[in-house]
Amino acid sequence: MGMFGGGKGAFIGSIHRSAALMDNHIELVCGCFSSKAEKSFESGRELMLDESRIYTSFEEMIEKEAQLPEGERMDFISIVTPNHLHFAPAKMALLNGFDVVLDKPITYSLEEAKELQEILKQTGRTLALTHTYSGYPAVKEAKERIARGDFGKIRKVFTEYPQGWLSGPAELDPSSNAGWRTDPSRSGKAGSMGDIGTHAMHLAEYVSGLRCTELCAEVKTFVEGRRLDDDGAALLRFDNGATGILAASQVCAGDENPFTIRIYGEKGGIEWNQMNPNTLVVKWLDRPTELVRVGNGYMGYFAKANSRTPGGHPEGFIEAFANIYSNFARCVMAKKDGVEPRPEWLDFPGIEDGVRGMQFIETIIKSGLEQESKWTKWVE
Amino acid sequence: MGMFGGGKGAFIGSIHRSAALMDNHIELVCGCFSSKAEKSFESGRELMLDESRIYTSFEEMIEKEAQLPEGERMDFISIVTPNHLHFAPAKMALLNGFDVVLDKPITYSLEEAKELQEILKQTGRTLALTHTYSGYPAVKEAKERIARGDFGKIRKVFTEYPQGWLSGPAELDPSSNAGWRTDPSRSGKAGSMGDIGTHAMHLAEYVSGLRCTELCAEVKTFVEGRRLDDDGAALLRFDNGATGILAASQVCAGDENPFTIRIYGEKGGIEWNQMNPNTLVVKWLDRPTELVRVGNGYMGYFAKANSRTPGGHPEGFIEAFANIYSNFARCVMAKKDGVEPRPEWLDFPGIEDGVRGMQFIETIIKSGLEQESKWTKWVE
Amino acid sequence: MGMFGGGKGAFIGSIHRSAALMDNHIELVCGCFSSKAEKSFESGRELMLDESRIYTSFEEMIEKEAQLPEGERMDFISIVTPNHLHFAPAKMALLNGFDVVLDKPITYSLEEAKELQEILKQTGRTLALTHTYSGYPAVKEAKERIARGDFGKIRKVFTEYPQGWLSGPAELDPSSNAGWRTDPSRSGKAGSMGDIGTHAMHLAEYVSGLRCTELCAEVKTFVEGRRLDDDGAALLRFDNGATGILAASQVCAGDENPFTIRIYGEKGGIEWNQMNPNTLVVKWLDRPTELVRVGNGYMGYFAKANSRTPGGHPEGFIEAFANIYSNFARCVMAKKDGVEPRPEWLDFPGIEDGVRGMQFIETIIKSGLEQESKWTKWVE
Amino acid sequence: MGMFGGGKGAFIGSIHRSAALMDNHIELVCGCFSSKAEKSFESGRELMLDESRIYTSFEEMIEKEAQLPEGERMDFISIVTPNHLHFAPAKMALLNGFDVVLDKPITYSLEEAKELQEILKQTGRTLALTHTYSGYPAVKEAKERIARGDFGKIRKVFTEYPQGWLSGPAELDPSSNAGWRTDPSRSGKAGSMGDIGTHAMHLAEYVSGLRCTELCAEVKTFVEGRRLDDDGAALLRFDNGATGILAASQVCAGDENPFTIRIYGEKGGIEWNQMNPNTLVVKWLDRPTELVRVGNGYMGYFAKANSRTPGGHPEGFIEAFANIYSNFARCVMAKKDGVEPRPEWLDFPGIEDGVRGMQFIETIIKSGLEQESKWTKWVE
Repeated sequence: MGMFGGGKGAFIGSIHRSAALMDNHIELVCGCFSSKAEKSFESGRELMLDESRIYTSFEEMIEKEAQLPEGERMDFISIVTPNHLHFAPAKMALLNGFDVVLDKPITYSLEEAKELQEILKQTGRTLALTHTYSGYPAVKEAKERIARGDFGKIRKVFTEYPQGWLSGPAELDPSSNAGWRTDPSRSGKAGSMGDIGTHAMHLAEYVSGLRCTELCAEVKTFVEGRRLDDDGAALLRFDNGATGILAASQVCAGDENPFTIRIYGEKGGIEWNQMNPNTLVVKWLDRPTELVRVGNGYMGYFAKANSRTPGGHPEGFIEAFANIYSNFARCVMAKKDGVEPRPEWLDFPGIEDGVRGMQFIETIIKSGLEQESKWTKWVE
Repeated sequence: MGMFGGGKGAFIGSIHRSAALMDNHIELVCGCFSSKAEKSFESGRELMLDESRIYTSFEEMIEKEAQLPEGERMDFISIVTPNHLHFAPAKMALLNGFDVVLDKPITYSLEEAKELQEILKQTGRTLALTHTYSGYPAVKEAKERIARGDFGKIRKVFTEYPQGWLSGPAELDPSSNAGWRTDPSRSGKAGSMGDIGTHAMHLAEYVSGLRCTELCAEVKTFVEGRRLDDDGAALLRFDNGATGILAASQVCAGDENPFTIRIYGEKGGIEWNQMNPNTLVVKWLDRPTELVRVGNGYMGYFAKANSRTPGGHPEGFIEAFANIYSNFARCVMAKKDGVEPRPEWLDFPGIEDGVRGMQFIETIIKSGLEQESKWTKWVE
Repeated sequence: MGMFGGGKGAFIGSIHRSAALMDNHIELVCGCFSSKAEKSFESGRELMLDESRIYTSFEEMIEKEAQLPEGERMDFISIVTPNHLHFAPAKMALLNGFDVVLDKPITYSLEEAKELQEILKQTGRTLALTHTYSGYPAVKEAKERIARGDFGKIRKVFTEYPQGWLSGPAELDPSSNAGWRTDPSRSGKAGSMGDIGTHAMHLAEYVSGLRCTELCAEVKTFVEGRRLDDDGAALLRFDNGATGILAASQVCAGDENPFTIRIYGEKGGIEWNQMNPNTLVVKWLDRPTELVRVGNGYMGYFAKANSRTPGGHPEGFIEAFANIYSNFARCVMAKKDGVEPRPEWLDFPGIEDGVRGMQFIETIIKSGLEQESKWTKWVE
Repeated sequence: MGMFGGGKGAFIGSIHRSAALMDNHIELVCGCFSSKAEKSFESGRELMLDESRIYTSFEEMIEKEAQLPEGERMDFISIVTPNHLHFAPAKMALLNGFDVVLDKPITYSLEEAKELQEILKQTGRTLALTHTYSGYPAVKEAKERIARGDFGKIRKVFTEYPQGWLSGPAELDPSSNAGWRTDPSRSGKAGSMGDIGTHAMHLAEYVSGLRCTELCAEVKTFVEGRRLDDDGAALLRFDNGATGILAASQVCAGDENPFTIRIYGEKGGIEWNQMNPNTLVVKWLDRPTELVRVGNGYMGYFAKANSRTPGGHPEGFIEAFANIYSNFARCVMAKKDGVEPRPEWLDFPGIEDGVRGMQFIETIIKSGLEQESKWTKWVE
């Protein structure tokens, strides 16, 4: 794979690389790690890349790689830049025959996302969107159990993503990741709603199998001088009549990353907390709560296909990330080999999730900031 | 004390008695435990009461007790009947010189609550409302720390009260407590919002020290045939600019009683879960989360005054209840003795909390059912 | 009931009273709360006792109470003094027709315990020993499940009782409870092994249904100048071939009271922690771990008979204590009324547990201090 | 790196590879994955190795790799075979100029371990032993805090490693990893004591900074027909006067891998559980317990150097493993480059830990099986 972005000091770039590499079927062969040539080269060298395949623009990278023979050139490009730099490289890569991995949210605007969707239809290429949390095996177990009806009809979906790292004006520190995330020209219409709200909505829909049809939101900026929202909450309605709540905030001082989801059906429900990711709490009306744990023989098909260790040997965030990379890579290889992909390989977020993410941003911002919390139909 | 309601098989009556008795300064001396004479007598005998002080109506009880000499007659009446039977006995008791303990919500309607408030003003008597959860020492510790500014200005208040026991049509079972709770003629305007939503709002205001000024709610009935709401959620706004969420549901299948509150200020925050009631989780922006535990020397004034055991010897629901009874009783005695009550004695819910609870019911039902989730100013 | 000991400031006396009173069938009618007349009277008055029934010696109390008419005199005596003051009042009470509640360990020495056993045989009276922890409903549930063979043959029994409150020379503070506990003339042969080691061994045998037959121990004093052990551990062997570990320490700095027991059979096992007392963790070889929770409909006979609240409304230490008092009192009343006691009423610790506790002290001190950790057969 | 062992289906081989690869500075370049040529080639091909570098014996691999030019040949060999196949390849590799990574326990016998120690002295090469658990950042934090004296003098060290997977005769299933582990000819003198007891003792010494000087143990086989121990426990004495307990069992039915360590000093202590690996519980005598969490700014030098994600993004077992590989690899590279290694690079288990592990096996087997639990001095 080739990487765009993720130079020295960029947290998420190194996560992407570890995730891609750890299953021993993806190799980093080239990259453009920074628009500053020096930094890109320094980063590339540290990653033991051949100098000839360290680039200083995505255009250069895609162009030159496309000229290399098939077995040699990168198979796909992983784009880990701020939101405003997703669309152009993704589009060019797709049009030049490369598959694409994109960090979320998929693009800067809904329009870009839809254009990408169009290009994917035309090119028939593969795109993965790294909504890490649906890569966790316990999350897949939850989805599988709900889908097969263990809990009866779903009534309630609660998802909450509280973080504390933007409790102060972190964007004033130039070394912080907060800079572009709070800058409308780089992040898009939303701050926290785009950064973590999209994760929460994605997980709610992924696990429940439902689609949100309308929401009623309050979106807010607590830190003075901040240019985008740092907090939001919404009442939710789903297509089967279920209701729920989504809360996402980056001013929950003292919270690290306890992203949770709880779903209740008529007979029971599930609870999952990203900070204890290998346990799925399964509740029942008339029986004891069960701690369903990743790595055990009783786990379902998808969870088993997405875990590496026996029970009690924790897998974490990077492994969840790696599941997305590995499933994506297996699909890419299967296509190349003309092989039918297995169902678990196909189970990674893609363009439709990306478009829904951008629609979520549009919808929640509309309900929250423009309409004073009116119930707002999902923006298509 | 005398008791109205709480005959054989009534869960909450026996809790009230245990709570009242356990600190060895309140005695049960009389009661009317049922409108059925036989049942009232049977219950009273089991409670080792003198036959002459087992009554069959509250009117009889109040009248006869009032005729007894001061040292002998009941000091106060504890009313543990369904909501529609709160007001009349409370009013009569107050007017006949008795102090009153009432289960929540305080009355059947906001009007009754206000009338009670008026009577209390006129009579100068004392009333306690058993919002149990603010009786927990860890909750008082949270209030004390927030009040002294440990966390800076409060920004977010999350309170959630999920139960699962009304996931099915429990009211069809005549032995269930669900009957009157889901019956508009006995419960009032609201079902779950009155039963547990009022607890959630009370705790949010008690701990934060803030007042909710408006809310935007969805209130719903999931179980077919049910006549009152069994689920609700609201976006909240508070008087200092903080926002929050209240969720209360009785169809969260598999949940027992994990009532939680989380509050965040600029520098950190607190988290408390009723099912682990002796731990207050205290979070900080730049320091490790602390487990502040009831019974330790470092606890604050109010928590210390409201706990009985050393650290690690769990106190529970009945002890929290007992704190309300004991503080109330100490105030009643102090008044009798002409003594100034200590601040910790005065710290129990009373008529103002009761009125706010009824206002909450009015407000959330209005926003949720009448106004399709419009932001609704607190109903006064 | 009458109380011996437990005057103002004595933590455990007040726990005993709350426990006795909370179920509304025991009343405190008299007491000797201190050998100092003034303190005894002051304490008694605060407890609202009639002056005529506040005594200044146990001899006086037993003698005078015995002269009162049956319906009026105390039914039993609760003895909550240091260990060296258990035997004499218990003996005198039993010989004068009173039943007895004793705090643990039952006596100062094994010899006294055996003499008490003899007296009980002769008098046919009832004695309860307040090993609080076997009063918890979740503990009774564990016992019931193991007894009916849910987990197959038991192989391993781990019990650990770590406290930190004697990490420093607490006995130098005269207001501390550490004084008599670390004084051989008042505590007996052992310090921590008697104070909490006996709890651990009692629980291990109570829950497992096994008998310890030999142990291999190290017993130690960490704090300089301390006159009795403050730490100990033993390898255990049980009568069915199971093995285990008992650890009890009062120098585990920072630990409050996380007394735990874990038992494993061939097919699964249980885990319980006193600081989270309403949850019994049940583990299985091939199925998810279950959180078996007090107050739910699926609980067994003994747990149900020993709980007061619905699931999720925590009961704690005082309620566990109250279960011992209530079951004891029901047995006392049943005997008086010539009624057959129910099985759950009989389920409280008594003289046999007391004797085994004293034997445990003898055995662990012998193995640990006298025999340099040789395997030591249970001292009979 | 080259790998010996770890062919298809071998759990630990794939963990080693993921761990080695994830930090992007180690590549798998060759391997002998099985003594069966076909299986070795099949495994190698799946790992995308060049056919010319898939070998069928470690002798062939070491010999041929040694003939390759320096930049091309493997830098080190990772040996992930059963215990009886550790020594020969490690010795040959070292003598042929390769550094070595070995799974634990280091060898089949203490003699072999000592000979390896001698060879390392002579060759000056580097060896890493994958005691995974000391690779966790929270464990390193515990060590750092204890070493700098935060808790005063250490008094108690408790370590427990309970697993349930050998509760039945798992070795009868040929696909199980239990086969060689319970076979004296492949595993060595000990079963569970070698497999997980060595982990427990290593962690106890690593974190506490103490050395165990003698122990008093019971070692046992519960499952009929099993040829090695599946359970053991020992009282421990350390060189500073501290005492402790080590328990390791593979018949704790229902337990996955909750390996824990708790250490207490005069002022407080630490607690860590491998199944919740990113939290270090820090306890204090007079202050609230703290949840010290990996990834936060307040963490110490070693923890920071060994973590990859911000707080709340869990790292797990593979990352702990990767820390050993990365630190080892950095030391290997530093040596090659003539650079002084940083202190955190040197912090991985090596030959001395290996020798101590084999001594532990000797000591505990002697105390437990040969001496009926006599206190046994550490076997040198």
